[in-house]
This record gives sequence, C-alpha cells and structure tokens, in this order.
Amino acid sequence: MERKTVSIVGSGNWGSAIAKILGKNVVERKEKFNPEVKMYMYEEMIDGRKLTEIVNTEHENIKYLPGIKLPENVVAVPDLLEATREADILVFVLPHQYVHKICSTLKNNIKQGTVAVSLIKGFSIHEDGVIIPMSKVIGEDLGIPCAALSGANLATEVAQEQFCESTIGCEDDQMGQLLKELFETPYFRVAVVSDRQTVEACGALKNIVGIGAGIVDGLGFGDNTKAAVIRLGLMEMIKATEMFIPEMKVTTFFESCGIADLVTTCHGGRNRLLGESVIKSDKTIKQLEKELMKGQSFQGPLIAREIYTMLEKKNMTDKFPLFTAIHKICIREMDPKEFISCLRNHPEHL
Amino acid sequence: MERKTVSIVGSGNWGSAIAKILGKNVVERKEKFNPEVKMYMYEEMIDGRKLTEIVNTEHENIKYLPGIKLPENVVAVPDLLEATREADILVFVLPHQYVHKICSTLKNNIKQGTVAVSLIKGFSIHEDGVIIPMSKVIGEDLGIPCAALSGANLATEVAQEQFCESTIGCEDDQMGQLLKELFETPYFRVAVVSDRQTVEACGALKNIVGIGAGIVDGLGFGDNTKAAVIRLGLMEMIKATEMFIPEMKVTTFFESCGIADLVTTCHGGRNRLLGESVIKSDKTIKQLEKELMKGQSFQGPLIAREIYTMLEKKNMTDKFPLFTAIHKICIREMDPKEFISCLRNHPEHL
Repeated sequence: MERKTVSIVGSGNWGSAIAKILGKNVVERKEKFNPEVKMYMYEEMIDGRKLTEIVNTEHENIKYLPGIKLPENVVAVPDLLEATREADILVFVLPHQYVHKICSTLKNNIKQGTVAVSLIKGFSIHEDGVIIPMSKVIGEDLGIPCAALSGANLATEVAQEQFCESTIGCEDDQMGQLLKELFETPYFRVAVVSDRQTVEACGALKNIVGIGAGIVDGLGFGDNTKAAVIRLGLMEMIKATEMFIPEMKVTTFFESCGIADLVTTCHGGRNRLLGESVIKSDKTIKQLEKELMKGQSFQGPLIAREIYTMLEKKNMTDKFPLFTAIHKICIREMDPKEFISCLRNHPEHL
Repeated sequence: MERKTVSIVGSGNWGSAIAKILGKNVVERKEKFNPEVKMYMYEEMIDGRKLTEIVNTEHENIKYLPGIKLPENVVAVPDLLEATREADILVFVLPHQYVHKICSTLKNNIKQGTVAVSLIKGFSIHEDGVIIPMSKVIGEDLGIPCAALSGANLATEVAQEQFCESTIGCEDDQMGQLLKELFETPYFRVAVVSDRQTVEACGALKNIVGIGAGIVDGLGFGDNTKAAVIRLGLMEMIKATEMFIPEMKVTTFFESCGIADLVTTCHGGRNRLLGESVIKSDKTIKQLEKELMKGQSFQGPLIAREIYTMLEKKNMTDKFPLFTAIHKICIREMDPKEFISCLRNHPEHL
C-alpha cells in the first residue's frame, strides 16, 4: 500500500492539539504515512510576526495553544491549496461556519482518492429545516468519503497527554481502521463505530447542554442540579438525533462521543464558561466571545440557534424545553432565573 | 383511603435530609399521610447530651446534617420498635451492613399491610456469589413489598433545596405513585420506573466508579480522563447489572439513578473524596473513614470488595478491569499509578 500524506485544515486550539498527535504518529507509523504533515493556517500577525513563521520556527502555536511544543514535521502553511495539494487524508478542524467556503476553494484541487475526516462540532442547516452533519457537507462539497471524530477531548488536556478516549464514526471499515491508526496514541484511545452521523450529532448538541451546565453554575447550584441538566440534556440530544437520523443507534451515546464528551463539556468546556458568563454579566454573546475566546466563536449559541430555528419550523419547541430555554437565555429573551422551572416541568422520560 | 403513617429507619446525613422532605410533605398532603414522622435514631452522646434530645428540641441533626433545620413534626426516637410500631410506610436509610440486624428486630413487630422503600446503597452477597439488592433483603426479611429510591442526590444539596431528580423503582404501580407523592417536592423531582433492581444496582455500583474518579483526581488528571473513567465505569455497571438481573432495562441507566447519579458521585461524592485520599496518603480505608467520615463507613470499598469476591468466584475479574483495579488499589494491593494502564487496555465496547 502506498504511504498516505496527511494535511490538517485548521489550526486553532483543537487543530494544534491534534497536529501534535498526527505529527508524532506519521513518523512512528512511517510504513503507512508520509512523515510531513502540512497544516493550513489562516495567517495572522502577532506582535509584527506572521503566526505561520512563529509555528515553523518555534514549533508552538503561541496564540491558540501556548506552552505546547509541536513536532517539527508539522509545517504551518498559509496557502490553503499548497497545504492540501498532496493530501490523501484531509483532517478538517475549523469552525463550522467556514467549511463551505474552504470546500469551494478545495473543490477540483485535491488528488483523486483523497478521503477526509471532520473534527468539526456543528451542523449545516438548510432553509427547509433539514440539518446536515459537517462530514456530509464536506463529503458532498468535495465528492469524497468523509468520516467524523468526536470525543471527551478538551484540547489543552489532550495536548498535555492526559489519557482520554475518542470516537471515529465511519461507514467504511477499512477507512475507519486507517484513521484509527492515524489518530490513536497510548494517551488518546480511539474506538471506531459505523454510526457516523450520531457521532457528529453528539459533538454538536452537547455544546448546547454545556451552556445549560454553565447557567446552573452561574446561578449558584451544585452537582445535583448540574446532573439533572446533563440527564435532561442527554434526553433531548437523543430525541433530536432520532428526529434527524432515524437509523441512529442509541448505543453510540455510550461511546466517548456521547455521555463522556457531554460530561466533560458540562464541567470543563468553553460553552460551560459561556453559560456561566451569560448569568454573571449583561454582555452580549459577541462581547463575551471577544473577551473569553480571543475572537474565536463559541459553537454552543450558534448550534442552539440552528436547532431552535428548526424546532420552531416544525412546531416542536415545547418538546425540547431545555434547548429552547438555553437559546432564549443566550439571546437575552428569557430571564435565566426561569431556567430551573423549565427543568422542573420537563417531560419525564425519553 | 386511610391516612398512612410514615417512619424513617436511619438518621445519618441522607436520612436527615430526607426527613426534612418527608416532614414537610406529610403536612402538606394531610389527606394522605399522618402528620407526624418518627425517625429511628441510634442513640449517641454529643457533649454530654443525647442526640435524639438535641434533634427533638433544636430540630437539627448537629452531628450528621449540621446547619439544616428539620420540621418539628419529625421526631427522633432511640427505640427501634417504638419508632416503627405504627408505620404504614417504612423508609429505610441506613448503612447496608446494619439491615439484617434491624430487620430481625422488626420482624413480627410491624403492622399488617406495611410497605417499605429502601434508600440504601449496597448489596447483600450470599456465599455462593449471588448478589441480593437491599430492597429484596428487606422485603424477604419482613415479608412485605419493598421499593427502592436512588438518584443524583448529594444529601447536603438536597437539604439546601437545590433542584434535583430522583428515581423510584417499584413493581407495583399504585405503591409507586403513593411513594412519589410522599417524596416529591418542587425541588426534588421523582420519576417512577418498574425496574426496581436496576435502580438499586446503579446506586450501589456507582460508588465503585466514584472511587475511580477520585483516583484520577488524586493522580492529577483532568476532565478528559475523568470522563473516560465515568464512561468505562458505566460500561462495567451495565455489564454487571446484566449478569445479576437478566431482565434489566438499559433505559433505567438514563434515569436519575443511572448516569445522573454516576456523574454527581464522580464530581462531588464521598467516595470520590476517598479515592483522592487513597492516592494522597498512605492511610488505610479504616483510618480514612475515621478522619473523613466521623466513623460512618464509605460504601464504595465495601461494594467493590463484594463485587470483586463475586467476580473472582465466577472467574470474571478480567472482564471488569476497572472494578478490579479500584478494589485492589483500595486494599493497597495495586500501585495506583497502574490505574491509567487499566483504562488504556479496557475492552472497547459493551
């Protein structure tokens, strides 16, 4: 088998943490992979220097993953086509709102036989209320197979090599196994399942629940109340996934991409921090993004809006009181103090 | 329908928190319940005064639930038979190792038609390796129906009236509804399921996983690693429950008694604290109990030992690497640093 060339599209916090893994793995498994990993990086100036230059000389993404050395065989490239031209495996890890634009540039400029894997949390939503997972967007835009990777993977902890698990959703067994070999390390354990769309639904929807967990933190409640938010949020995640993906398997929620990621998100994630900040200040989401995220965007509020728009079109907001309340609190249309009564009146079972 | 008299057997941290709920509810629902709740309390001397006297004059369990006022219609009684003689509903909430002894005193001394509900976390284990849930022990010892209540309910937060959920497992629908009316409040939301034994299995087994969460905290790992412990622990909980209770429903793990309680236990519970302490000191479990629990016993190590004994008899310890490692770390037979490699080599799926 010919050795595969790997390119990463995106270079934020998570993209940089994953670059550390991929850079090491392609060298260790050199019978399968070419030893250089190009990483597409949107160029920014940091104190008068280009970020790509800093990464390629100091081997550190000082803006989005400071304090972590990247392998020297990870090369930051500011030109998208140059970064991806030789790739057999494209690893997409960038905010979901940029995917269409990136794919329209890539289209007709990639090698034949290239495959992709999406590490993106989010959906694309059509005007008719149909929700499309990002792997499908990428796969269809580029006309290639696209898998999905998602799990309980706070980027900084992965970069510190703390043990965790992750899930790859891939319909094609052989491709799934190849991706497992690309991503797995002794501290990053990867399971492969065929139920790709549920893997992605988990990764997107948990961000909404994470905001909810931050809201109860901000209101001063403890672990019991947060557990109720996690449980009721999980119920809504499963119900929503069943609506989008009738063939989904509920067992996928038991993988790392499901409950494990949800728990992590509700305790340590960015969207939890956002939820807490929404309670403790009067600022808008945009202002909070600037302050807390150096301008990167929170995925949770975007996804909450997308889901809410879709539920409203289908006249189903009352079946999803938690998702609905979180969206309305984010856009300051609901008093956060009403959040607990929405838990209290939640439909009991699945 | 005749009004029911409620007695509580046990008066520790959780027993006292639940006494606060029951005392208020019997008054508010006086068409269903008699307005006095007797609470059996093992007598102790506190600074020269009887604890029952303190509770009955100051309406506070200053030893096990300090700072929380109990309703005045909750009466602490040091004599077991006097506390329970008139009861139509017996609420059992005491450490599981005392249940047999208590029941042998109660037997033939309770009213006809009395029912029970167990809030006890734990099992009874027979010499042949068969594991019996506490509601079954109580039900068989006394020859009466016994339900079970379990959920994400850290006692102190319940006593502070922070919103949470709980699950009652009861085969008899009518009895389940009566118990729901006895226990439910605006801040303590109760769902009833028929799968009683799984409700109890969750409540017992999660204590083992809670120790595991404490171990990774003690070792200095973050949210990703803890999420992996929670997920792999849940897998072993489900697998163990399937072994004991072939008719179990996996959906019960989605109730508050399942994942919600597990998450709470792994973040705020006593057994998590124990796991962390086991790593950070060289003391034995018995010494830690004295220091951390005022002599009350941690449920986790007892249950871990029971499960380990049963698994060893069945030659199945290798199928439960997490439970096995946690037990061996508790009894200082395994170096805690090996805990992460047991996660790493865990069988992947359910």
